Amino acid sequence: MTTTTTPSRTLDHPTRDQIRLEHVLHALSDPMRLRIVRSLAEADEELSCSAFALPVSKSTTTHHFRVLRESGVVGQTYRGTAKMSGLRRSDLDALFPGLLDHVLRAVDRQTARLGEG
Amino acid sequence: MTTTTTPSRTLDHPTRDQIRLEHVLHALSDPMRLRIVRSLAEADEELSCSAFALPVSKSTTTHHFRVLRESGVVGQTYRGTAKMSGLRRSDLDALFPGLLDHVLRAVDRQTARLGEG
Repeated sequence: MTTTTTPSRTLDHPTRDQIRLEHVLHALSDPMRLRIVRSLAEADEELSCSAFALPVSKSTTTHHFRVLRESGVVGQTYRGTAKMSGLRRSDLDALFPGLLDHVLRAVDRQTARLGEG
Repeated sequence: MTTTTTPSRTLDHPTRDQIRLEHVLHALSDPMRLRIVRSLAEADEELSCSAFALPVSKSTTTHHFRVLRESGVVGQTYRGTAKMSGLRRSDLDALFPGLLDHVLRAVDRQTARLGEG
């Protein structure tokens, strides 16, 4: 138990047991969300939402992060005024070994093939 | 060239180059569609839509097959009066090596964990 975080500043996350493959795949089925996940995987640390210069509105960015968080792909915590996001790699790797890495490789291959990113 | 199939009985499919990762992941982000894909992978041959006893209506089943076909996950052809479906494994494996196998393993793990299927 920690009492350092007020309830209103805590964000809902599924526990590892609550994470479902179909929700994870849905969260990954969008180009902007794949871009976020790739950036988080490359950074290998928590990033502030403002670190992502996505070509969409702030509210759309917030929506994408919520989908990623509610599916269990990303964990988000408040650090002061900043909302920090990180990949839940250990949870995903435990539940679905190798899946995240193969999705990330598929993103890279497609980006190279289509010349995007 | 074959002239045995009339144009009206041909179904639209993306070519290999037109297949997009985000569309594939979306097609796989539904429990019924994952079940179809798992059955096709296990059968390792084309199956008639009637071979799938899904707990949903016929029109919903048709919808799921259309999503799978339009994303490039499944190929469908008419054989007489039967619509046959098969996994486009060689296309998916060429574009995204290992991805389909890891999704199928993840389905099996989740099914074992949750006691469904």
